[in-house]
Amino acid sequence: MRLELLNTGTELLLGSVINTHVKFLAEALFPIGLRISRQVTVPDGDAIRDAVIETFGRTDVLLITGGLGPTTDDVTREIVSDLLGLELIEDAEVWRQIEERFARRQLCMSPRNRRQAMRPEPATVLWNPHGTAPGLYVPPLPGKSSPHIFVLPGPPRELRPMVEDYVVPMLRKLVGQSAISEMRVFRTAGLGESFVEEKVGEQLLGLGVELGYCARPGEVDIRVIGTAEQLGLASEIIRNVLSTSIVSDDQRSLEAVIVEALASRGESLSTAESCTGGAIAHRITNVPGASAVFLEGFVTYANNAKRRVLGVPKEDLEKYGAVSESVAAAMAEGGRKAAASDYALATTGIAGPTGGSEGKPVGTVFIALASKDHPTRVEKPFFPTDRERFKELVSQTALDLLRRNLC
Amino acid sequence: MRLELLNTGTELLLGSVINTHVKFLAEALFPIGLRISRQVTVPDGDAIRDAVIETFGRTDVLLITGGLGPTTDDVTREIVSDLLGLELIEDAEVWRQIEERFARRQLCMSPRNRRQAMRPEPATVLWNPHGTAPGLYVPPLPGKSSPHIFVLPGPPRELRPMVEDYVVPMLRKLVGQSAISEMRVFRTAGLGESFVEEKVGEQLLGLGVELGYCARPGEVDIRVIGTAEQLGLASEIIRNVLSTSIVSDDQRSLEAVIVEALASRGESLSTAESCTGGAIAHRITNVPGASAVFLEGFVTYANNAKRRVLGVPKEDLEKYGAVSESVAAAMAEGGRKAAASDYALATTGIAGPTGGSEGKPVGTVFIALASKDHPTRVEKPFFPTDRERFKELVSQTALDLLRRNLC
Repeated sequence: MRLELLNTGTELLLGSVINTHVKFLAEALFPIGLRISRQVTVPDGDAIRDAVIETFGRTDVLLITGGLGPTTDDVTREIVSDLLGLELIEDAEVWRQIEERFARRQLCMSPRNRRQAMRPEPATVLWNPHGTAPGLYVPPLPGKSSPHIFVLPGPPRELRPMVEDYVVPMLRKLVGQSAISEMRVFRTAGLGESFVEEKVGEQLLGLGVELGYCARPGEVDIRVIGTAEQLGLASEIIRNVLSTSIVSDDQRSLEAVIVEALASRGESLSTAESCTGGAIAHRITNVPGASAVFLEGFVTYANNAKRRVLGVPKEDLEKYGAVSESVAAAMAEGGRKAAASDYALATTGIAGPTGGSEGKPVGTVFIALASKDHPTRVEKPFFPTDRERFKELVSQTALDLLRRNLC
Repeated sequence: MRLELLNTGTELLLGSVINTHVKFLAEALFPIGLRISRQVTVPDGDAIRDAVIETFGRTDVLLITGGLGPTTDDVTREIVSDLLGLELIEDAEVWRQIEERFARRQLCMSPRNRRQAMRPEPATVLWNPHGTAPGLYVPPLPGKSSPHIFVLPGPPRELRPMVEDYVVPMLRKLVGQSAISEMRVFRTAGLGESFVEEKVGEQLLGLGVELGYCARPGEVDIRVIGTAEQLGLASEIIRNVLSTSIVSDDQRSLEAVIVEALASRGESLSTAESCTGGAIAHRITNVPGASAVFLEGFVTYANNAKRRVLGVPKEDLEKYGAVSESVAAAMAEGGRKAAASDYALATTGIAGPTGGSEGKPVGTVFIALASKDHPTRVEKPFFPTDRERFKELVSQTALDLLRRNLC
């Protein structure tokens, strides 16, 4: 069963608003066995007409968002009726609810709101408790090759409950129970995208699954779609080959995996960040429940702070410089001691764009992990890139260094 | 001149990734007089073929994103060449640069990377300093009705500089200088979107400009499009009415404005964060040059850390609780003293989802600013929302409290 999505709205194409409908709808539809085959955005107005017509005969279901509002540029309702040769009638119950809504909020009605009570005659109303514009469902019309059409409001807080309450249940009936695939996303850290594919790609394709890769700084997701049995086999292959590089198989983030591992072990963490400037603490504290395991974060940009807060020896700073293996180690150990935590992560490096030298170019970084269980570990990757990505890569590498010690 | 955008990538239609290209490209193209007439997303693979063909004869420019990577699902390069009847050749200079990139990063190359050096013969290479895959420009081919085609990499950090460095200058030449409006974006902090519109909307529309609003947590942008003269008048209106709520009129971020203000005054900042968990330090240190003004950040989740690191009195913690006006003030003052900085920002609150109580529900927060020049200021907004948005709103409010003291 083929499904397409048509988003209408000039603001989407001007970049004033980011389209989050695609993600929401994709995730709502996948569990009932439906995927979006094509997504189109057109501005308000006549372009909607062409975009609707071209789907006739090509798709089974068409979801349209936007253009149900009261202003003159909201014309989706009219265009769909016109294309299908249907007359618009006023729905008495819709009109009653709009009036009630305005009265309850003590708002003045505009005559324009009357248009929102109109619907094509054979359409089913999808009620909207979060706004004035109801959605509409128009079944396929004989002789028109028109798909099942759902017309939905643009604002996410109106669209989302309508999709959950009406669209998904109605589509589930249409689809039936056959052939629903499952999806699993294996998140890996510290490997390159082409390396990951080289290691597992062929074996996985041999299972007949659908496969995709998605790379972000310092991590690669492997997306596998197939039957439950295929996913079991895929999981075995991926675990055998990539073993400790696997962060999660349920889209949990690296930081969430760490917080859970620390919580289950009853252990705690602190951070002593120079070049990442709080990025590691920020990621950890994004995880609900982080306060149970994260004791303290120090952002020590100035040498003086490294000495006073973390107890980094003056001689090390002078002899090796702030960006050095021994200072990274001393920062981690000092942070762990100051916070009395089980682990401490430390970073010191040159994020750029300035501050590099011949011996220590922009991108140089030392990452240290102090632990109650083993001697301090220091890694020295090299990330010659822009400032924000440098911070992402360093915090990712640091968190992964900790994860490999925990999991 | 008509321009269309084709985004390729199964991950976009599965909802694994949100499409941010539309916004970026729309904003990059607008100043040269171009708008996106239609945007389409299709999955990796053969659907790309149909989506490209259907634009022939309909559009003048086609931007395609994604599918230039090294993995087998990356096929945009091949499909475009095939459709245009062009042969792929290996570009020696591209290959040299890929090899150099891997060598510099001390990474192993995969034979798959070789595909990334291929280009259709008449194509111009758009260099990509941020990744292995260069972009491609293929001019219209006589007899094919094909548009100007730009093929761009999917990752935003590779696409964005390529658009700025190549696509925009090349398109500017094609478009010429006629009838280009200017756009200015006034960024405001601490006001609601409907409030902003109510205050300035009608006056601005009276100037005949095109107007748009864009709201993010704690800030609202006012987008004004018109002639230079209209923009001058609009600027006057906005400055008169919204005065100190204006952060910038050139899309500079709140944190960049703060770093510049501190630098020009020769002053310094430290942070003492509890509920924002490093988010404020992270935002400040994202600004190049932050190291000149940002001395130290403390992330003190545990009460113990608040006492030991920041010197918060035990009695205050016991009597008022960690989330209280006096603890916020003590954190800011303690942070300022510990770091010997001119200003210190502190936050303490309940981000949720758990940890709330009747007297202090989730969303409660105290924000304090200690300064060398005036008594410590404490604000108590209320942000009952999800955890990430709570952190955004609190860090935004804290930074804006500082900005209003500086600017």
